[in-house]
Amino acid sequence: MTSPHPPADATLADLGEFGLVDALTVRFPQGDDVLIGPGDDAALVSFPGSRVVVSTDLLVEGRHFRRDWASALDIGHKAAAQNLSDVNAMGGRATALTVGLAAPPDLPVQWALDLADGIADEAALVGASVVGGDLTRADEIVVAITVLGVVDGEPVRRSGARPGDVVAMAGRQGWAAAGLAVLARGFRSPRVLVEAHRRPQPPYAEGAVAARSGATAMIDVSDGLVADVGHVADASGVAIDLDSTVFDVAEPLRAVGSALGADPMRFILTGGDDHALVATFPVSTPVPEGWLRIGTVAEGSGVTVDGEQFEGPGGHVHF
Amino acid sequence: MTSPHPPADATLADLGEFGLVDALTVRFPQGDDVLIGPGDDAALVSFPGSRVVVSTDLLVEGRHFRRDWASALDIGHKAAAQNLSDVNAMGGRATALTVGLAAPPDLPVQWALDLADGIADEAALVGASVVGGDLTRADEIVVAITVLGVVDGEPVRRSGARPGDVVAMAGRQGWAAAGLAVLARGFRSPRVLVEAHRRPQPPYAEGAVAARSGATAMIDVSDGLVADVGHVADASGVAIDLDSTVFDVAEPLRAVGSALGADPMRFILTGGDDHALVATFPVSTPVPEGWLRIGTVAEGSGVTVDGEQFEGPGGHVHF
Repeated sequence: MTSPHPPADATLADLGEFGLVDALTVRFPQGDDVLIGPGDDAALVSFPGSRVVVSTDLLVEGRHFRRDWASALDIGHKAAAQNLSDVNAMGGRATALTVGLAAPPDLPVQWALDLADGIADEAALVGASVVGGDLTRADEIVVAITVLGVVDGEPVRRSGARPGDVVAMAGRQGWAAAGLAVLARGFRSPRVLVEAHRRPQPPYAEGAVAARSGATAMIDVSDGLVADVGHVADASGVAIDLDSTVFDVAEPLRAVGSALGADPMRFILTGGDDHALVATFPVSTPVPEGWLRIGTVAEGSGVTVDGEQFEGPGGHVHF
Repeated sequence: MTSPHPPADATLADLGEFGLVDALTVRFPQGDDVLIGPGDDAALVSFPGSRVVVSTDLLVEGRHFRRDWASALDIGHKAAAQNLSDVNAMGGRATALTVGLAAPPDLPVQWALDLADGIADEAALVGASVVGGDLTRADEIVVAITVLGVVDGEPVRRSGARPGDVVAMAGRQGWAAAGLAVLARGFRSPRVLVEAHRRPQPPYAEGAVAARSGATAMIDVSDGLVADVGHVADASGVAIDLDSTVFDVAEPLRAVGSALGADPMRFILTGGDDHALVATFPVSTPVPEGWLRIGTVAEGSGVTVDGEQFEGPGGHVHF
């Protein structure tokens, strides 16, 4: 964890996203009705007779999406998926979204309408509605989505992993990152990977499954597998070792790795945009059907892959 | 209301904010748990055992604030106030906020921390906490705030005004607009007006007071008094006449009007950033203490001032 007291003349670039998050978090006092505050996939707020899961994400043109790489419909699906997945990662179920859109005045109306359709269609996959929002003018497009949801039992946090637990994953991993690598080189195929980048398919049903199955910690993979497993390790005060040999490197990933001269395992270990779920389970608990055992929890700190320190960028850093 | 089916080649500038809102709103199907969807100051969503008020607002640098005109602390207060006021206008009480910040990497960390302090301090005025958020890089600063709240009784919507009702207002009106006019001319005084622009003082206690007193409709003045009263008239299917003679034009407003050669009543009729509350009450209901009777509701449509069509810009249009 970075010091929450940065030097007076630091810029956001100096501090980085996580440093700034740490510095901001200590400044937000939490009322009695806040059951889970900043620092998890979503917050949990007590209401009379209910508990509400809430999470916010921003997408910025050129950084999170490009209009020449994806349609507005796809971008809407992706923006909603990113938020819905945060509720999924708490073991909850999304019910409502608000959408803020800042956009330049020369943006075609049809683009905004298609974006809205994509968001609404993705929300409908989990039974959630777009209930409100805001529109304003800006030089670049920023999409700000907030999702509300319910959690039936106890929410699954990042901080509950215990030494001895098994680490497991649900959903695809590495496909969106490989699709991005393809697009970045000016290619449009393999199409299945480009589509995975444009429109992720988070395992929406699996968050609640994991919660019911006794998951001790959970996160959705948005910063990268190693990076997000690292968030669980940090929050839980444990060490996690990932076993790279269990991953079935799908043929399209191997093809792209070969074409780009890259190790396809990189996509799996550092890719984020598929929104796979990673959860930890007590060793005595059967891992739910369809989940892949990818590692183990031990005493200590940090993340290793096959027992070794993982080299290179662990994921996406936002400044 | 603009047609919800704009021409295929229209841009956001062609359609305008309200046109785009109309076009978007029809695209968002609402689930059974949505008690109030898009189109009011806030939405209302049903949760097991509870109802949650939710609203989102965006602020963009250069459009909603300028770093040379207000401190980050002030901008934080103002951003939070704008959102908290939306809950107030439903007769609710804000409990939690999420904050999304998109910002350039050369932004001083201290600016972001001061912004956070301003948001948290303003939220504390009503007992609300900042429970989460998101940070990302962008070329311009965008602050996206979502507020959650509770409403003890029935929420007061925009659509409940009935012919014969009395229109009343709580809070200052025109001060922030006059402060903005002063700043735009390069002046920094009268200080009280500049401060009103930098840090509005919405009448947070009055939303619930109006709801308990039987208000039939309510809105917070963010687009301009005539414009927002127009939203109530449209949503309620009524005509509203405002009586300009009841407003006490405060001395600083008269001073600025005189210095700038402007009618100070313009600030009152078109200014928005004070977040005054306007509510309608049945004529048999005493208007709550501290509220100013400013008009009457009749059959028909649209807003008049002193019985006449109001000329000129009615408020803030975002494209």
